[in-house]
Amino acid sequence: MTAATVPTSTKFDLGPARALLCRECGNETPLAPEYACLECFGPLEVAYDFGKIRREDIEAGPRSIWRYRGLLPVPSTVEQHPNTDPGGTRLVEADRLAKALGLRKVWVKDDTGNPTHSFKDRVVGVALAAARELGFKVLACPSTGNLANAVAAAAARAGWKSVVLVPSSLERAKILMSAVYDGALIAVDGNYDDVNRLAQELAAEHEDWAFVNVNVRPYYAEGSKTLGYEVAEQLGWRLPDQVVVPVASGSQLTKVDKAFRELGQLDLVEATPYRVFGAQATGCSPVSTAYKSGHDVIRPVRPDTIARSLAIGAPADGPYVLDTVRRTNGAIEDVTDEEVVEGIKLLARTEGIFAETAGGVTVATAKKLVETGQIDPDGETVLLITGDGLKTLDALGDTVGPRATVPPSAEAVLKALG
Amino acid sequence: MTAATVPTSTKFDLGPARALLCRECGNETPLAPEYACLECFGPLEVAYDFGKIRREDIEAGPRSIWRYRGLLPVPSTVEQHPNTDPGGTRLVEADRLAKALGLRKVWVKDDTGNPTHSFKDRVVGVALAAARELGFKVLACPSTGNLANAVAAAAARAGWKSVVLVPSSLERAKILMSAVYDGALIAVDGNYDDVNRLAQELAAEHEDWAFVNVNVRPYYAEGSKTLGYEVAEQLGWRLPDQVVVPVASGSQLTKVDKAFRELGQLDLVEATPYRVFGAQATGCSPVSTAYKSGHDVIRPVRPDTIARSLAIGAPADGPYVLDTVRRTNGAIEDVTDEEVVEGIKLLARTEGIFAETAGGVTVATAKKLVETGQIDPDGETVLLITGDGLKTLDALGDTVGPRATVPPSAEAVLKALG
Repeated sequence: MTAATVPTSTKFDLGPARALLCRECGNETPLAPEYACLECFGPLEVAYDFGKIRREDIEAGPRSIWRYRGLLPVPSTVEQHPNTDPGGTRLVEADRLAKALGLRKVWVKDDTGNPTHSFKDRVVGVALAAARELGFKVLACPSTGNLANAVAAAAARAGWKSVVLVPSSLERAKILMSAVYDGALIAVDGNYDDVNRLAQELAAEHEDWAFVNVNVRPYYAEGSKTLGYEVAEQLGWRLPDQVVVPVASGSQLTKVDKAFRELGQLDLVEATPYRVFGAQATGCSPVSTAYKSGHDVIRPVRPDTIARSLAIGAPADGPYVLDTVRRTNGAIEDVTDEEVVEGIKLLARTEGIFAETAGGVTVATAKKLVETGQIDPDGETVLLITGDGLKTLDALGDTVGPRATVPPSAEAVLKALG
Repeated sequence: MTAATVPTSTKFDLGPARALLCRECGNETPLAPEYACLECFGPLEVAYDFGKIRREDIEAGPRSIWRYRGLLPVPSTVEQHPNTDPGGTRLVEADRLAKALGLRKVWVKDDTGNPTHSFKDRVVGVALAAARELGFKVLACPSTGNLANAVAAAAARAGWKSVVLVPSSLERAKILMSAVYDGALIAVDGNYDDVNRLAQELAAEHEDWAFVNVNVRPYYAEGSKTLGYEVAEQLGWRLPDQVVVPVASGSQLTKVDKAFRELGQLDLVEATPYRVFGAQATGCSPVSTAYKSGHDVIRPVRPDTIARSLAIGAPADGPYVLDTVRRTNGAIEDVTDEEVVEGIKLLARTEGIFAETAGGVTVATAKKLVETGQIDPDGETVLLITGDGLKTLDALGDTVGPRATVPPSAEAVLKALG
């Protein structure tokens, strides 16, 4: 098959998905359980024939991400099979945070409301739906936290077996959160890179194992588009001026951009200009470093940050993040671990939202972007809060605690309150 | 003022709320920041003039509990003030759990999706809205966990001061979850009874402090009605045959019943018969004990159970729970701590939902009700899961963990999987 050959049919019902398209060489290949281009080994992405999509049809759908099923690589019957049905999370008008940051208008997309309390439920939900159609029988992943929770929970809900590989050094709380769903949680003596390499090897050997972020990645990654769709719909079918997105592999940032572009192309929103900003922790900031240096190539780093859910030293979508940010006139910044903790606390005390470290990265980066004049303080800005503070309690260390410990008397309480 | 005097006006805009009604003597008093009957010291409850409420109006509302504002004691302008906007949580069709329990049809109301991951966001949301209208300036509570989180978060969001009193022996994780919002968290050297007594004392002394579960309790408690409204609407505007509700103070159970009755009276659903079941942990089962003994009086107990969020030894609404359960032909059961843990794990492995210990109580009680023939296996049954497993990780102890710990080789992983 040569580049640009368009398959005219597929044996899979994956809704509007038409083919897999190589992001490097543009080669198209039929929908299949593939993730690398047969021509150039570049990453494959889902291409669509959307047809006519109307706001009313979306609005008449369920509250979950399946209201956007006409924009996702999932069967039209997706709602008939058990899934975690994520999405429909709050978009919070964050006036107090805006004031603290020096921005005119801020909205916080609070994805802690998902079934396992992170945006990973979105991507895993789409991966499960696609994997079922593609003939897989086992849901799997390498992970250090949020993804493990989401995969184990989704597999349990669907009645599928799951294989979740984690580094054996993972904190006990994270082990419990993944093990409780009773899939096969395997602790591997090694770091995340070792675990990830193992997943690649196992995916190649077991054709019916869907490693969501490996061999099902083209479908899985599309789930992040729903963050963009929801933001636009919740704003009353329009795009924000600016959006700040945490960058781990970089996939989420590129998919939010993809969602915004699709909505404009489909006339679901007016295609107004928007700027996409990336947020990293300084202890793992390969994309920020490349951006600031004006490079196109990402130099891998060894992560050293409390923002573990963003600690990917060799981010697969890094170059596409650079493209997106430069094309939309955005920027990428990074913040120290101390700033991350301050970001978590700022969001909590101004808006009552308790984010994980990745959320602290987003808030602290927004602050830095304002202070350095890289973001427009008058632009309406959306911050993506993609994970839950309950999962990264250790990051707070001794920085929060009771205001006082007192004997059981009203007088003592009042004295403590000052 | 004598019993049954109906005030004809109120200076507060609390929507459809008409007056406060004594649940014991029936005396009515104008809407005010009161919680005990001036005639007999009985507990006050909100009485309403609903007028005409239509499904379409509710359906056109926001996704949060404010879609039911016409049924709640909150101002018509409630959405204009910052609040946590809870509700709109998933009702999960739980076929795998149903099969495991031996029930024909089970729905799980997953209230872990609320902003601070428990149903307490519902009651605190209503309390904050009412407290603002009633002239309070500080949001407060005594708590051992979920309520502390919800109050601290809601106050932060609203820009209010908060005073949260907790026993100083509380686990560090729960301290962190409440302290991060930066209100005044005061650790009190004493048990929950000491803390609660302190709250009563402080509420009496500080007229502008809204202790949500003390002096604002009549309004606060109404928030639990939204669980009933949502279940009915999500079922397609009809009532389930059976509902299993965890019992702490007992308020939630009586309010779900109140919601179902109101919906029938307002012709929003057909007033089909339903049975209400109560769930307690054996280590704190005063209501279950009274039910089984055929008593009308609740004998207080000293709690000793891992289900701490249900550990109220002298439940204020216990007698009303007995009334409700007997009137609807339900039952009350209690389960051991071992059964609670099994309940948590059963829900997780069948439906991918990770509940706190109170959820384990509900699931395990449903199982026991089936086994003892007290619940109809053919009846459509709703289980209320009101809190999040991430907050009670310790309860799992060593009962869950990795299936194996292996060296980083595919062979070792496959061997471990068997």
